[in-house]
Amino acid sequence: MNLEAPTDRRLLGIDFGGTKMAIGIGDADGRLLVSERLPTLAARGARQALDRALDLAQKLVTDTGGTLHAVGVASPGVIREDGIDLAPNVPGWESLRLAEAVRDHLGVSRVQVANDLNAAALAELHRGALRDADPGLVIGLGTGVATAVTVNGAVVPGYRGAAGEIAYAVTGPDWPASPEPLLEADFSGRALDELADRLALPGGAAGLCAAAAPPGPVRDALVARVDELARHVVTCCLLLDPQRIVLVGGVARDDLVRELLLDRLSRALPYPPELVLSDFAQDAALLGSLTLAAQA
Amino acid sequence: MNLEAPTDRRLLGIDFGGTKMAIGIGDADGRLLVSERLPTLAARGARQALDRALDLAQKLVTDTGGTLHAVGVASPGVIREDGIDLAPNVPGWESLRLAEAVRDHLGVSRVQVANDLNAAALAELHRGALRDADPGLVIGLGTGVATAVTVNGAVVPGYRGAAGEIAYAVTGPDWPASPEPLLEADFSGRALDELADRLALPGGAAGLCAAAAPPGPVRDALVARVDELARHVVTCCLLLDPQRIVLVGGVARDDLVRELLLDRLSRALPYPPELVLSDFAQDAALLGSLTLAAQA
Repeated sequence: MNLEAPTDRRLLGIDFGGTKMAIGIGDADGRLLVSERLPTLAARGARQALDRALDLAQKLVTDTGGTLHAVGVASPGVIREDGIDLAPNVPGWESLRLAEAVRDHLGVSRVQVANDLNAAALAELHRGALRDADPGLVIGLGTGVATAVTVNGAVVPGYRGAAGEIAYAVTGPDWPASPEPLLEADFSGRALDELADRLALPGGAAGLCAAAAPPGPVRDALVARVDELARHVVTCCLLLDPQRIVLVGGVARDDLVRELLLDRLSRALPYPPELVLSDFAQDAALLGSLTLAAQA
Repeated sequence: MNLEAPTDRRLLGIDFGGTKMAIGIGDADGRLLVSERLPTLAARGARQALDRALDLAQKLVTDTGGTLHAVGVASPGVIREDGIDLAPNVPGWESLRLAEAVRDHLGVSRVQVANDLNAAALAELHRGALRDADPGLVIGLGTGVATAVTVNGAVVPGYRGAAGEIAYAVTGPDWPASPEPLLEADFSGRALDELADRLALPGGAAGLCAAAAPPGPVRDALVARVDELARHVVTCCLLLDPQRIVLVGGVARDDLVRELLLDRLSRALPYPPELVLSDFAQDAALLGSLTLAAQA
């Protein structure tokens, strides 16, 4: 006999990122009641990040009362039962058994793990900018760079769950003789952080974007990076003919990056899609993880 | 009262290409009974091509007996009610009202027009290499270059019916300052024909591919073109994570082109898809047009 009243049911969502992790508690319908953020401290490895996130999750569950019914987890990369592929930004992340670790730590059986961009796309489909757009393309400009595809109101996971991993797109004139660099090395939060360091600009990617406002070498450097991203987004748009692109992630919030990207798409594409910033600020994947929990 | 016996029903399929047009008569289930091919003679314009195709179609319908039940038409470009976008290989094609012209000429009301690669993908899904693969990517290397996407057993048309038009992908180091060239100018049957002419090789694209077998400048020139195609196919595969790619069209039948493309995908992609040549030789879009007719 289940004595748990539906109104007491709590859903837990966790969004693991390369820079930040977000924990949210939702009601039975997946509405966010409370959320907290903590730094990943990626250089210290995967295990400490996971443990701190799960400890905070346990505390938030206890604080908000009710009964933990299910957990949804969003993670970069391609999620397998016994590990995670293509998630290079946190050392050790590749060998985590995320679902198992969450079950063991929190004592709950219903755990659903998905790729973070796919989780963000789920949130956009259910209650965001893709509610009324098909096909949809979500572009995540966070620590890394990735996308998610929606068709007919559903996220397209791909044959191996790897749809959207455009970080591995090839750039540079020397390919295939020289396989590097990949798009992720040209355009991602990490790549822009490195560019900022090289140009002796404080504040990482955000500082770089701010310093790129006036014409000059900093702006030129950022424009070149956006142009490389735009080339690949153009090809993605030609393949999918999306009605709308939704941008998520920290770097996506920069006005100049969005303006440049929109300008390039408008010039290159016979049918440019709409391009909007997610309504969810940086919470798209977190809200998607709550939707995952509601479906678990 | 309909006196037409289902076994007497005939379906007509027409595949309009930039170089050749194919006409096929099918039975009520869309099985091909007879087909003929005729040259497009693109330089003489759209109207004469359309008229000759419809005259031959009328003749084949009469010859095979039965009653013409419905017509399916495959055309390059983006099909609208009052014209066709993005079909530059036959002058005047953009202003054709294809469905109307077919109805008027053949006196049949059930007419379905679709993009040729989408028609090919329909044939691959129903009875070809995509019967057991999802997602699927069809790449057409004919007079032009285009793709089609299948997800969950259906062709993805895109928001404006323009999904798959990768001919417009941007190439060259000077983009966006200089918007040209596009992928179609680097890799397509027409581009390879032009390259063959420039290298004083007889036989157009096919002659070029044959001359590229031994190492040397001709091979290097072809390899550079395949590399540019491969860059964009890599991005398409990263976006979609297809289980299988099916190649259709005349240029796709060249072993060297397929080997080079497979090599590049295998090097660049974390999860390379299978890459197969269509079982339908050059008839994929024609068979798809019969499937369209059966659904009309």
